[in-house]
Amino acid sequence: MEIDHIAIAVKDLQSSIELYSTLLDKDGADGVEEVPSEKVKVAFFQVGESRFELLGSTDPSGPIARFLEKRGPGIHHVCLKVTDIKAEIARYQEKGFQFVGEAPRMGAGGHMVAFIHPKSTGGVLIELAQH
Amino acid sequence: MEIDHIAIAVKDLQSSIELYSTLLDKDGADGVEEVPSEKVKVAFFQVGESRFELLGSTDPSGPIARFLEKRGPGIHHVCLKVTDIKAEIARYQEKGFQFVGEAPRMGAGGHMVAFIHPKSTGGVLIELAQH
Repeated sequence: MEIDHIAIAVKDLQSSIELYSTLLDKDGADGVEEVPSEKVKVAFFQVGESRFELLGSTDPSGPIARFLEKRGPGIHHVCLKVTDIKAEIARYQEKGFQFVGEAPRMGAGGHMVAFIHPKSTGGVLIELAQH
Repeated sequence: MEIDHIAIAVKDLQSSIELYSTLLDKDGADGVEEVPSEKVKVAFFQVGESRFELLGSTDPSGPIARFLEKRGPGIHHVCLKVTDIKAEIARYQEKGFQFVGEAPRMGAGGHMVAFIHPKSTGGVLIELAQH
């Protein structure tokens, strides 16, 4: 396993890209992608083997808009890179971990992803991603 | 820069070590350390080049106890590994970033650390650490 990325819910994607460019000493995001299924636009910054991902909402009814309303901007989830997501989901389910929504499903970058419910992890939304 | 660790505030360190051992498919924490200056006991799990750190409070007046009271368990901060912390602090201060408390100061593992205020980062407490 590796930490694939840390995802941060932001109010304004463009100003947050500028902020995180300064913070991470970069000349801008390493990529920007819209993920219609999650109603977000994502900007990512490679940091070692991991990434910071900024999540800007594209729809006031989407999960990031609702998160921002409830919690304000900040860390939204952590993603672990796995080699066999179906095997990992089975392993977690056997141990009693709950998933959010369909697992696995198609996520950013065309990867298969799944989200473990924060109730199963002590308050941390954990995504699994198979590249 | 690399992501040094992701720190998670937990209510009960021992049961959280068991939970994260299952979650990260490990036979227990890779290390446990008390950091009296921060009033925490820390358990860490190596994941690729980064770590998950579980923060258990050792004092009801400490920062983790207060965080748990206010926000509940969950991600507390993200730590970036830097090679020259004094140069990074100067670079951030020049750009207007605010720090929390003394910067740098001695942290876990005998490393020099500093914490950038969430007000400067869009709601994310970011630690810098020089090994």
